[in-house]
Amino acid sequence: MAHNVELISVGTELLLGNILNTDAQFLSQELAKLGLNVYYHTVVGDNPGRLTQAVNLAKTRADIIITTGGLGPTCDDLTKETLASCFGKKLVLDLDSQRHMEEYFKKGLKTCAIPKSNEKQAFLPENCVVFQNDWGTAPGCAFEAEGVHVLMLPGPPGECTPMFLHRALPYLKNLSAETILSRSLRLFGLGESAVEEVLRDRMNSLQNPTLAPYAKEGEVELRITAKAETEAAARALIAPVETEVRKLFGDQIYGADVGSLEEVVLALLTEKHLTLGCAESCTGGLIAKRITDLPGASAVFVGGIVSYTNAVKHDVLGVPQDTLDRYGAVSPQVAAAMAEGARHVLNCDLALSTTGVAGPTSDESGNPVGLVYVGLADKNGTTVRELHLGSVRSRTRTRAASTAFDMVRRAVL
Amino acid sequence: MAHNVELISVGTELLLGNILNTDAQFLSQELAKLGLNVYYHTVVGDNPGRLTQAVNLAKTRADIIITTGGLGPTCDDLTKETLASCFGKKLVLDLDSQRHMEEYFKKGLKTCAIPKSNEKQAFLPENCVVFQNDWGTAPGCAFEAEGVHVLMLPGPPGECTPMFLHRALPYLKNLSAETILSRSLRLFGLGESAVEEVLRDRMNSLQNPTLAPYAKEGEVELRITAKAETEAAARALIAPVETEVRKLFGDQIYGADVGSLEEVVLALLTEKHLTLGCAESCTGGLIAKRITDLPGASAVFVGGIVSYTNAVKHDVLGVPQDTLDRYGAVSPQVAAAMAEGARHVLNCDLALSTTGVAGPTSDESGNPVGLVYVGLADKNGTTVRELHLGSVRSRTRTRAASTAFDMVRRAVL
Repeated sequence: MAHNVELISVGTELLLGNILNTDAQFLSQELAKLGLNVYYHTVVGDNPGRLTQAVNLAKTRADIIITTGGLGPTCDDLTKETLASCFGKKLVLDLDSQRHMEEYFKKGLKTCAIPKSNEKQAFLPENCVVFQNDWGTAPGCAFEAEGVHVLMLPGPPGECTPMFLHRALPYLKNLSAETILSRSLRLFGLGESAVEEVLRDRMNSLQNPTLAPYAKEGEVELRITAKAETEAAARALIAPVETEVRKLFGDQIYGADVGSLEEVVLALLTEKHLTLGCAESCTGGLIAKRITDLPGASAVFVGGIVSYTNAVKHDVLGVPQDTLDRYGAVSPQVAAAMAEGARHVLNCDLALSTTGVAGPTSDESGNPVGLVYVGLADKNGTTVRELHLGSVRSRTRTRAASTAFDMVRRAVL
Repeated sequence: MAHNVELISVGTELLLGNILNTDAQFLSQELAKLGLNVYYHTVVGDNPGRLTQAVNLAKTRADIIITTGGLGPTCDDLTKETLASCFGKKLVLDLDSQRHMEEYFKKGLKTCAIPKSNEKQAFLPENCVVFQNDWGTAPGCAFEAEGVHVLMLPGPPGECTPMFLHRALPYLKNLSAETILSRSLRLFGLGESAVEEVLRDRMNSLQNPTLAPYAKEGEVELRITAKAETEAAARALIAPVETEVRKLFGDQIYGADVGSLEEVVLALLTEKHLTLGCAESCTGGLIAKRITDLPGASAVFVGGIVSYTNAVKHDVLGVPQDTLDRYGAVSPQVAAAMAEGARHVLNCDLALSTTGVAGPTSDESGNPVGLVYVGLADKNGTTVRELHLGSVRSRTRTRAASTAFDMVRRAVL
């Protein structure tokens, strides 16, 4: 049976535009991987009447309802109360959740017991499956009633994401006899339409597995999805298509089922016992930030220097004043000297550098917005790439940092 | 009359999670500023049947319906056709739109006439107000029927945003005689429930203006919203409430109608001609990244050193080996020495430092996950704060960086 899912996001802050509904995107991606159809997202405020209306409508057209938000401690947080009442269920105190919350408060904040307002978070619909929250205070839950599976997840993405992956996903997988398996190949350096052009005929001819590209921030994800009775059978359907796709794109594919380019770089460098450092101008710390977002970064990443002024480029990185004067800060010569300087000062195996014009205005030398040089110094010498990344500051910074990581990947492979 | 708006976002790519619904956030913010109530967002795929169902429901509960998406040239793009049919209207060729599109293609792409597939974009509901598209090919439109105002906007944010601001906004402003004004106060260092506790009675007693708190990433936004006949009258309603709130929270309010803590810090330092640098361990470049996200950062920010190893702390920042050995890298002593070292090496007026355990595991000295020291060195000396930020790596890093910016703000004020 093909399940239909409806997402209901609860929160007045969404209707006011205070926050972006990233939960809906994340859950949609995950549900698509499971082969579940999502026909509607609905966003309602912290209003029991309107939430009831949305739930009653969802009941008529979906057999799985997933809510996010409204599990918090304030009097506005009414998702559990409302959903329980829509399905004629009582809320009862869950002792495990209460104990877990007590521990959470003891560990995290030290200074206080459970605030009065948080107590209500331990009340859950009777006979539900409790989704223990190891990332915050509000437990989630799931129950089946009136032929509908209802799952409730907390709203903050830092809680919603892990709770979905560790609690809701196993619950959903149990609902289906069929196994759906996805394999995600990640490409850097090609646009979505270029990838689509190469694959169009093949994509249209494939039924099981299916093959589909998705664009993300200057990268492309290619997803191969198979349905079969067992996981092994699904894997066997995917394997030949993966081989075929890998032949077409070669080392433009940087990984399979991986989180990001920097994750691949971290794993590669860890495996080869190589250390990395960086000297950043236009990316202003983004390279360092992205690699240190990852747990375990300290095994590889020694540090970085954000040299936003010529003085720091000269004093800390040792870029010769003459090079700065003659070629200007945004030049391949300075990119090379920054990478070499960082490798020396930070005493690491590989060092990256970036210098460019992130915008919105061009620099004093008249270099155009979006011009970026990315350098890489290692034991074999120094390479510099020239990029033209357009006029959007955030995009230029992101793509420059991604290119830097891709240069490390290619150098180490 | 208080208008109720319902947003309907059309696009299968939203339901698959391929794109994030940033249009809904942007429009919600703009509609809130206009004092229009938004009670529901609905997302549907490129499916006329389900879109019809969503529109028919919206008709019963909203008097303004705004759609985004589905105005493109492909056969999947059916928003105009579906909405026209829901309201018994025909689509007719709009000659101005056709001419405008011809010019767009001549100017932008040079190589071709209007592609066959784009022709249908010039067909619009009879007797509508046309929203000319100067940022892409698909014109938007608005009409009134059955007591409901229907506005259709293109999906790509680069077209939706300017078309809303330049075309839809004047249309909506004409619908109401009343002016609505919001003032947003931003607080750092207090949780949402703590703010709510202080304000609960006052919030409940206020009618016009209203007062409401919203939580965002360890910060709280307090919004005061007034309705009046003129902007001046609305301002006059807001002013005494703002004064009252400012008395209650004092310097925990870091700004009014501002984008972020780092934006306030950048403006303050620019005004006072002070320069900033940083030495980051556990935040790993996040402080530098956040301030250099902002255009104009180079007026203030000289650079930073990400010292992820003790060697970099010693060699580049000059933290005495003895201090590292005696107290360990995660200690107030090292935080102080890092800030002082950064101030010296980067030659700046103020220097921040962070050292701590971002997690997921505790460090070799057995310091608990979430323990962070943030240091600030300036001409008056060095201050270090000890923080306990819990077990979620990304949250610990974000809050440590925010605390650092807040320390600069307080030091400079």
